Amino acid sequence: MTDHLVLFMPSGKRGRFASGTPVIEAARELGVYVESVCGGRATCGRCQVSVQEGQFAKHGITSSNDHISPIGPKEERYDRVRGLPEGRRLSCSATIEGDLVIDIPQDTVVNAQVVRKESDGRVIERDPAVHMCYVEVEEPDMEKPLGDLDRLLVALEKDWKLSRIEVDFHILPRVQQILRKGEWKVTAAIHKDETDDLPRLVALYPGLKNEAYGIACDIGSTTIAMHLSSLLSGRTLASSGTSNPQIRFGEDLMSRVSYVMMNPDGREAMTNAVRDAINGLVDKVAAEGGIDREDILDAVFVGNPVMHHLFLGIDPTELGGAPFALAASGAQHMKADEIGIHLNKGARVYMLPCIAGHVGADAAAATLTEGPHRQDEQMLLVDIGTNAEIVLGNSARTVAASSPTGPAFEGAEISSGQRAAPGAIERVRIDLDTLEPRFRVIGVEQWSDEPGFAEAAEKTGITGICGSAIIEVVAEMFLAGIISEDGVVDGAMAARSPRILENGRTFSYLLHDGAQKITVTQNDVRAIQLAKAALYAGVKLLMDKLGIDHVDRIGLAGAFGTFIDPKYAMVLGLIPDCDLDKVKAVGNAAGTGARMCLLNRGYRREIEETVRKIEKIETALEPKFQEHFVYAMAMPNKVDSFPNLEKVIALPEKKAMGDAGGEGGRRRRRSRE
Amino acid sequence: MTDHLVLFMPSGKRGRFASGTPVIEAARELGVYVESVCGGRATCGRCQVSVQEGQFAKHGITSSNDHISPIGPKEERYDRVRGLPEGRRLSCSATIEGDLVIDIPQDTVVNAQVVRKESDGRVIERDPAVHMCYVEVEEPDMEKPLGDLDRLLVALEKDWKLSRIEVDFHILPRVQQILRKGEWKVTAAIHKDETDDLPRLVALYPGLKNEAYGIACDIGSTTIAMHLSSLLSGRTLASSGTSNPQIRFGEDLMSRVSYVMMNPDGREAMTNAVRDAINGLVDKVAAEGGIDREDILDAVFVGNPVMHHLFLGIDPTELGGAPFALAASGAQHMKADEIGIHLNKGARVYMLPCIAGHVGADAAAATLTEGPHRQDEQMLLVDIGTNAEIVLGNSARTVAASSPTGPAFEGAEISSGQRAAPGAIERVRIDLDTLEPRFRVIGVEQWSDEPGFAEAAEKTGITGICGSAIIEVVAEMFLAGIISEDGVVDGAMAARSPRILENGRTFSYLLHDGAQKITVTQNDVRAIQLAKAALYAGVKLLMDKLGIDHVDRIGLAGAFGTFIDPKYAMVLGLIPDCDLDKVKAVGNAAGTGARMCLLNRGYRREIEETVRKIEKIETALEPKFQEHFVYAMAMPNKVDSFPNLEKVIALPEKKAMGDAGGEGGRRRRRSRE
Repeated sequence: MTDHLVLFMPSGKRGRFASGTPVIEAARELGVYVESVCGGRATCGRCQVSVQEGQFAKHGITSSNDHISPIGPKEERYDRVRGLPEGRRLSCSATIEGDLVIDIPQDTVVNAQVVRKESDGRVIERDPAVHMCYVEVEEPDMEKPLGDLDRLLVALEKDWKLSRIEVDFHILPRVQQILRKGEWKVTAAIHKDETDDLPRLVALYPGLKNEAYGIACDIGSTTIAMHLSSLLSGRTLASSGTSNPQIRFGEDLMSRVSYVMMNPDGREAMTNAVRDAINGLVDKVAAEGGIDREDILDAVFVGNPVMHHLFLGIDPTELGGAPFALAASGAQHMKADEIGIHLNKGARVYMLPCIAGHVGADAAAATLTEGPHRQDEQMLLVDIGTNAEIVLGNSARTVAASSPTGPAFEGAEISSGQRAAPGAIERVRIDLDTLEPRFRVIGVEQWSDEPGFAEAAEKTGITGICGSAIIEVVAEMFLAGIISEDGVVDGAMAARSPRILENGRTFSYLLHDGAQKITVTQNDVRAIQLAKAALYAGVKLLMDKLGIDHVDRIGLAGAFGTFIDPKYAMVLGLIPDCDLDKVKAVGNAAGTGARMCLLNRGYRREIEETVRKIEKIETALEPKFQEHFVYAMAMPNKVDSFPNLEKVIALPEKKAMGDAGGEGGRRRRRSRE
Repeated sequence: MTDHLVLFMPSGKRGRFASGTPVIEAARELGVYVESVCGGRATCGRCQVSVQEGQFAKHGITSSNDHISPIGPKEERYDRVRGLPEGRRLSCSATIEGDLVIDIPQDTVVNAQVVRKESDGRVIERDPAVHMCYVEVEEPDMEKPLGDLDRLLVALEKDWKLSRIEVDFHILPRVQQILRKGEWKVTAAIHKDETDDLPRLVALYPGLKNEAYGIACDIGSTTIAMHLSSLLSGRTLASSGTSNPQIRFGEDLMSRVSYVMMNPDGREAMTNAVRDAINGLVDKVAAEGGIDREDILDAVFVGNPVMHHLFLGIDPTELGGAPFALAASGAQHMKADEIGIHLNKGARVYMLPCIAGHVGADAAAATLTEGPHRQDEQMLLVDIGTNAEIVLGNSARTVAASSPTGPAFEGAEISSGQRAAPGAIERVRIDLDTLEPRFRVIGVEQWSDEPGFAEAAEKTGITGICGSAIIEVVAEMFLAGIISEDGVVDGAMAARSPRILENGRTFSYLLHDGAQKITVTQNDVRAIQLAKAALYAGVKLLMDKLGIDHVDRIGLAGAFGTFIDPKYAMVLGLIPDCDLDKVKAVGNAAGTGARMCLLNRGYRREIEETVRKIEKIETALEPKFQEHFVYAMAMPNKVDSFPNLEKVIALPEKKAMGDAGGEGGRRRRRSRE
């Protein structure tokens, strides 16, 4: 029998191949992605694999280095010139001679000075939109007067099976010079990701060009984050971020939309601002990665609908009012050049689709990363900003909505609210008996009741409460009985603590009495209640739509999601009850989704398909929204129970205002502090 | 029987259709092109047809207006609003009710102010690359949050069966405004001509946009000619020309290539010069046609290889020496914007393929127009310039070559040579007995021996000999016996006429003795001999290649071909013997070919396919070229006979130099004067 069983790992794909079949051919036949630039000439070293030796009983394979061809002259030469790591083989040269288990390393380093810097631990299977294809072109011949470019295309068809290539116009004036400089050996950068799935020649280099890079960028309304990755090895070379300069036109999304509506040049000014910032970030990651920005050939961007529109130069006015019409919801392809992003002249840009008018490409990217549509568990994905973007579902069905939470969670509308910056209170605990608080301040190591705090805090000051601490302080006030389940600050408690202050007809809680008095007022509590009720009501609508009464898993996306403590979010009733171990911050989920789409165009098709299938719910049109909202004003909720939460924390007994007590809460056990 | 026989004219396509089938549907089913913008709403009037009444025995059809549905309310409304010419019907509304012969008018005027100005009589069957597609788009709906663009694409797919549309990026920022301005009714300009054959949305207009234009442009090294055509009716609205401003960098092609080689900014300067001139011509034809250049959506350009390269911004240096490598020989697609031609932002450019390093897109266009590849007769197509571009063949096989004629035919290297301009001698006759000349001068009505000539010529002067007259004067000198078949000016003739002047060891002929002495010297004759021998030898090589000893038809392209008299060209032996009735100037053949490609993308595929099949002969590499060249130095030729020519004109008996006589020539009959 001449056919051998070959199993590729980690994909698990397997097939039978005749003796003498090059390993790379077997991989390709099975649809296993193996990079190669030189086209089987054993010079680029991108196609490295290794043999896993041993008995693989489950697969019926005994794999051994004796079952692969011995190292031949081509591999020897590569090893001599560039160095082949121990155990590695070039799959273009090594042939199958027996049963094998072949390991495809997920990042083959051929460029030793590249420093590994992963943006997260995730290994992304690769199939980038750009491939580097080395070819040797026939020299011109008077008897066969095909043009230089035309002969290049013939070579690409012959060696790389690339037919009907469209050529970027900017190549044309340079093709002769590049071919001659490379002495008729050139590397073509081929991009393949358009509607037609036809290859495009986007860049051309003399000789063997053994690298190509891409950027993945998440345009947040506050922060822009960028990763620089090798398209050939998949590794992240640099990551960087900068604040979104549009902030000077308006803090939150709606104020930026208003700015456009009020100022004739507002759209253009904000488009230029964000593009300039992105160009600056490209400089930064290119410098950090030690590469030339000209070698960046692909880019993926995500952002919420307003960021998406402003980045693309689209007036976002329509997003400012019903029916919140997106100019375009589908995925967008363009040249970086067309939107003023300076990469290689032929570099392409891909933008993920938007889910709805207030559920953007960032939510789509987070969905791609967290994959509710890939699992059986019901997963809730929430990105909290001025609007909360909510995606809920599993592999059977996924729904999405946005809910108008307003800016309270970001510290706006809160009397002592401020951005997360040194001096801001970020953590709060309230003693159930004394009602005395202790807290942590950004920039200070110690808690406020620990030795050395006062000295350390002198440097930063204690200036306000940031978003995460607002959640905590309100939740702690509720747990301590300072506020009722209906959110009323209980004036009767003033008898127990001087921190309960009277302000006319309402009361407030004095969190810190220093150079600045930091208090939580009745209005602050109301603002948080309104915001969290909007979010929760939106989630409930989606749960209704799916006919489910609980969720199995919760992902909190965005910066806010990274800093809030899920337990306090649940005490407040921001999110529905769920096993707390399954509530996770998925901070950079949008950025990771962008990186997935950069490194594997299969993910582009996956998210496009997923977004097409996601059912969009417009909360404003749902009659039950109001009812859910009213119930959700209570803490954690008027009607819904939180059994998972109650396993780890004692909730106060419900007390209506005017009740004498609130003692109930005090005596209960508090755990997981 | 419910099926009716319907014949469409002029295509002759026919088929059977059920009662009630709209005429336009029947046409489309048969592949008969009928324009329509409004998509069957009876508002654009582009789909007009008429019924030919009568008995068509050959087709077995009795056609009558009773066999088409009576005029309905939609057509009545159109007639009321825009006016429907007598006998015309809207094929989207009229249905088949019996056997019919339907006439598709080749240009349906719906815009009365458009003035007809055809560049030539040719009617070009239409199937342009750009179609105007009117749609009514669903308004945005919060419950179906598809973007505005995405809903537009849905409408285009539904109404026009256009799927997988790629959208030009420049549309994106404007799509919302246009949709709202048109109250959700818009006309999409769809371009379909790329490799992938997928539709591209290149422009978008509010409401019904019932026009779209294109330009066809022939970039000659001396003159640039442009036609402006309606893509919807096919008619030419304006034609204009201008001199190529590159002339200031060099008169002929090779001097322009040299300019690039000597000047670092030479390529860019010449590229800018020709693009500026073309932009100026666009202004001119748009003004003349009374249209906005923004409404020009498609453009076709042709030119010789050097013009082609300089226009596209490609350094033509490689074309200056062997192996004469074209940067690209295949047809090129790009956006007008990419090459600095200011039309609609989404306008596309198509450039025909080049045949070889010295046989350009202009020769390809002329080939398309004259169609040697479409006929059984052996056709020779010659474009005479610094290099002669030669195409020869028929439907079975076509070959092409260029031959280095040098600039003699253009008046350069000729002692009294000048450009065709007022004052230049353009026609010459020499009396066989007296050897006295008579001639015509550009700008003067009379021949030089007619009354009133002297007065009229005072205004223009008599300044030199232009290209066409150089051919005539040398041919007449040969016919009169002043020069021998070997091209020697016969000094012995000085005894018979004072016009034979001695210049040291050679003689010349005094054509005019005025303020300027205009003579034809021995060197002038030699220059013409060298040029015509090069051309003839090239033609002979191609005839050898095809194994033929005569051609059936000759087309002389270009300005030079328009002005030379084929008879004299044959007397000189510039072209091989052929029935003189079948030798024609095809002056604007390249421009017509460009216009064909503009109006029907089928012609683009035809010429691409034809150019792929044309066999290219490099004259410099053919050992027989030298032999043919030597024979062709004689007039008309040392070895080849000219039986067709001799039917209409008596050629002098061959006389070797030193013969006393030359009398032989004088006594023969001269006809067709």
